[in-house]
Parts: sequence; structure tokens; C-alpha cells
Amino acid sequence: LKAIYFKDKKIEIINTPKAVIKQNEVLVKIILAGICNTDIELFNGYYGFEGIAGHEFVGIVEKSPENPGLIGKMVVGDINCGCGECSLCEKGDPRHCKNRSVIGIINHQGAFAEYLNVPLENIHIVDESISPFEAVFVEPLAAALEPAKQIEINAEYKIAVLGDGKLGLLSALSLKYYNPGLLLIGKHEEKLAIAEKQGVKTFLTDSKRESRSLKDELGEFDIIIEATGRPDGINYALDLIKPEGTIIVKTTSHELSSIDLAKLVVDEITLTGSRCGDFNLALRFLKEKRLDVLPMIENIFHFEDFHEAFKLARTPGKLKVIVSFDKNPG
Amino acid sequence: LKAIYFKDKKIEIINTPKAVIKQNEVLVKIILAGICNTDIELFNGYYGFEGIAGHEFVGIVEKSPENPGLIGKMVVGDINCGCGECSLCEKGDPRHCKNRSVIGIINHQGAFAEYLNVPLENIHIVDESISPFEAVFVEPLAAALEPAKQIEINAEYKIAVLGDGKLGLLSALSLKYYNPGLLLIGKHEEKLAIAEKQGVKTFLTDSKRESRSLKDELGEFDIIIEATGRPDGINYALDLIKPEGTIIVKTTSHELSSIDLAKLVVDEITLTGSRCGDFNLALRFLKEKRLDVLPMIENIFHFEDFHEAFKLARTPGKLKVIVSFDKNPG
Repeated sequence: LKAIYFKDKKIEIINTPKAVIKQNEVLVKIILAGICNTDIELFNGYYGFEGIAGHEFVGIVEKSPENPGLIGKMVVGDINCGCGECSLCEKGDPRHCKNRSVIGIINHQGAFAEYLNVPLENIHIVDESISPFEAVFVEPLAAALEPAKQIEINAEYKIAVLGDGKLGLLSALSLKYYNPGLLLIGKHEEKLAIAEKQGVKTFLTDSKRESRSLKDELGEFDIIIEATGRPDGINYALDLIKPEGTIIVKTTSHELSSIDLAKLVVDEITLTGSRCGDFNLALRFLKEKRLDVLPMIENIFHFEDFHEAFKLARTPGKLKVIVSFDKNPG
Repeated sequence: LKAIYFKDKKIEIINTPKAVIKQNEVLVKIILAGICNTDIELFNGYYGFEGIAGHEFVGIVEKSPENPGLIGKMVVGDINCGCGECSLCEKGDPRHCKNRSVIGIINHQGAFAEYLNVPLENIHIVDESISPFEAVFVEPLAAALEPAKQIEINAEYKIAVLGDGKLGLLSALSLKYYNPGLLLIGKHEEKLAIAEKQGVKTFLTDSKRESRSLKDELGEFDIIIEATGRPDGINYALDLIKPEGTIIVKTTSHELSSIDLAKLVVDEITLTGSRCGDFNLALRFLKEKRLDVLPMIENIFHFEDFHEAFKLARTPGKLKVIVSFDKNPG
């Protein structure tokens, strides 16, 4: 059995023994896995990572001793595996458990492999109306929808998504369900076009344009989703937000951001960090065809061509690169 | 008539003509005015300020053509004067009106003067059970209570106030009404003692102590009021906050703060800026004796000794310095 191994900024295709599942685990045969910016960071050595990465996946259940009804089903899986014992796990929020493992990130093998063990409670069955090429987007789509779980997003607000990268696009495509008038602000005409085709309003800007001039043209926003991926993106957001507005921060830069907190205080602005989301909500969005994720696929590679896939994924401006562990994924 | 004039980092006592009130204004004869850190910043030339500062005041109404019933009453006044026409003013929130003037700060004479014009709608009558030495704290007390208007604060949460300066002390003394177990963390034994005497739990730390070691000893908090006044105070707060917790930011430093937004995102933390508050709520706290503000008075000076008063107020670590414009303020 094969898996992709990250070590010292190198990628190796290794042989792994057939996985032995533990109690309350399910063995998933991976069909597709998506490459996320976090994987690129892990490759680059952030968090001192070494091992099998990958946390966006769809697969077929091969073993499930505690729930045999899952066998043969197409599934996706939450990536946070809580300890099951702390107060956060007890209230059903393993996403923030201090002792959690995270599939493909912290102390749990990832999905860039032919087989993956997943805790039974993390498993979500994918409806038959959803293709694996759509289902592989469930993890990032859930993250894109997380703001709608954190704050009220309705049609009354004036909302902007900053950044037309993968997460910005998914945010705009999905959150427009709650706020049809939202504006996606980005620097890439061809990416904005993907959102436009699905009815999202867009605004093309460029690196030289100052936020003040953007504000003069666009006005201020009640809610901004900051998904630029740049450490100074937050300052753009602070310049464009209304007093008492909320900025949802999606960018996880490894540089510190320099922020004018006086502006935050005087205008009583709220910044809320936002990470993983609700898989059930993302699956409902896909089932009800509230957005089309397929135009966000940059390319699909067989896992034996992982080097090539990863090189493409690391190229700035590329959309979602998907790796197939199955000869006939469709 | 006399007033205190700030210009080019100098203070002058000037003569002013007797104020002419405009429509819907009230003429207030100032009894007492408090010196705030903002006044020190204005003196230092931030915001390019020149003029008569002062925004914490209590006085007696001398003229009130539109509401003669106010004449002779002891009053305090909201400092934000909205344009009355924009959408924020229409929904009753002149605090964030873009065209607002702010008493003693922006385009409106301040309270370091014998007489002050105040918009009628900004006036609050002070109950007879409240002394002027208490009433002069209404403005900062309202600001200290603002977090309780912005988020739910109840006894269930584990809450810390960071910083035992004037605002930190007022925050701890007032917010303990909602959360009796809250902890005030500061570096000054004598200031913590003021809070302790009124039943606030306190913790003495020092500049050398790292936030990590504080966390080991105190655990993490659901809510932190960041009132250190230092640009790096926010990072202490970020180290001590629970996942999905809320930091209320009170510090308005003129330096930028370097913040690890990745921590904000991964732990889904919320930062909410917090400024001015609700005078009615502050007056209720004083009337019902929910806290005693008098131990927070550092000293009281007659306005002709303003130089001396201001020198003391600028000395680091000093509590509230009050200026009297009345020979018999009590």
C-alpha cells in the first residue's frame, strides 16, 4: 500500500503496512484528496511536520466493525479528533479540544494515502447525488461556511469577501446563499469570472490600489470575510469596515500582522477568527446544488504523479489540485 | 470666564467670552472635570489637537431654553454629538456618526472651562444621592461598563481584567456586578488593594513574568478585558484566552500592535474594540452603590492650579486627577 510522505521539504512515495483500525475507527479507502495551502505549509516545515499529510478527502468505507452499515458507502470525515473526555469534547466541540489530533496535521496520519483510519464519529455519508469530485470539497466548503455559524449573515448586511483565492472563492460562492448581494474583491480576473458565472458580484482591484481609494469607490461594509492570505489583508479589512462591523479572519499567515488597535477600539470593531466548519452544512449545500464547486478544480493527478501535482498546487494563483488514489474515481 | 487651553504641548489659562448657546443646547456651569489619558494624548499633539480639552465633567445647568426644567440641576453629558441626520444617528447611535463632534476631543469645546455648551439630548440628570465627586466618573464608568452592553457577561464565565490602571480598575469594580468571580491582573500592589477592598479577586504580576507562566498558574479565560494600555497587552490576552473566547480591547495605543492572527484563526478567538458607553447604566451603578469610585481619586486641584494637576495626571501610575471649577464643589 502506498502513501505520500513529507520529510525535510521532500516528498516520497512510501509503502505502508495495511492499516489496523482501532476501536471505534473506520477504514476508508481514499478515492480523492485535495491539496490545501496548509499542506504546503506542512511541507515547508511549519509545525515541525513530518509524515503523511492530507485532510481533504472522500473515500469508500472498507471496514467498520461498530457500524457495518457504513461498509461500501462513500464518506467524508471531520479532521479534528477530540480526546472525548475534556469539557469541550463533552459539549460536542472537539474542534478546539487541547488534546485533539487532526487528520493529516497533528498526530494522525493524513489522506494522501490509499487507506486512512478515521474515528467513527467523524464520518459523514455522502449523498448519492453528490459526486466524489464535489465531495472532496466538503472540508474547505465547511470552513468557508463557518462564518455563517459564528455570526448572523443575512440579506440585510453589506458584505465583502476579500481575496479570490480558493477560500475566498468558496466563501463568496457559498455565503451568497445568505447574502445574495455580497461582493467578492480580488486581483485575478479569471478567478473572479468563476464567481461571476454563479451570480456573485465581483470587483477587480490590484496591488497598487490603496484601501482608501477602494473605500471611496465601494463604501464601507458591515461584514468582511478576510481571506487574502496576506498578513496585511487585515488592514485592508479595517479600512473598509463600518463602525461596529465584524471582520471574519480566515488568513493564517506565519508572519505577525501589524494592526492599529486604536481603530478597532474607537470604531468598536470585532475581529473573529474562523477555521473549520460543519460538514453537515457543507453536504447540504452540495446536495441542494447551492453552488458548483467543479469550476474550482485546477487539475487532477494520479497519486503516483504527486510530485507534479504538488508543484502545481504550490504555484501561486492556482485553484484546487486534486489527487486520485483510485483508477476510476468518477 | 476662564478656560484651559492646549497648544503646542503648552497649557494656558485663557479668558473666554460668555458662551452663547445654540438651539437645543444647554449651558452647563462646570463643577468638576476629570483628566483622562486621552487628554494627555491631546496635549501631546495626537490628532493635531489645539483647544480646550476635557470630556469627563459634572456641572449645573444655567441655561436651557428648550427644557427650562433642567435649570439648577446637576448633570453629566454624553461626549459624542451626532449630526442627527445619518443612518447611525437615526438609529440612536451618534457614538459612531462619521460627522460627529466629540466634547473636548473633536470640534467641540471641552470641559476644562468654567462653562460648557452641551446638546440637550446629551444631558443626563444626576440623582441627588450621587455626589459630584462620584458623578465626574460617569463617563469613564460608562466606558468600563460598555463590554456588558457588547457581549453577554454573566457569572458562568471565567473573566480576567488585564491592567490595574484607571480603566482596568473601573472595569473590574463595575463588571464584577455581572461576574463576581472576575480576576483583576495588575502590577501595582496598591492599586490592586483598591479593588480588593471592594471584593474583587486580584493577582499581582510583574513585567518579567511571561504570559505562558501566568497561564500555567491561572488557567485560561472565557473573556478578557484588555486594559493594559500597552501595545503588547493584546498578546498577553491572546495567550490567556480560551478557544472561542472573547477579548474586549480597551487599549488605544498609538503604536501598531504585532499580532499572531494564526492563533486568532485556529482558536476562533474574537477581539472586540470597546470605547464609550451608556451613561444611564453608569448612573444606575452609582445610584445603587454597586461600586465606590471615590478611592480612585488621586487628588483634586482648583483649575488655577491646572499645571500642577496635569503634571500629576501625567505621572505614570497615578489614579484620577480631578479639577474643580467651583469653590465649594462638595
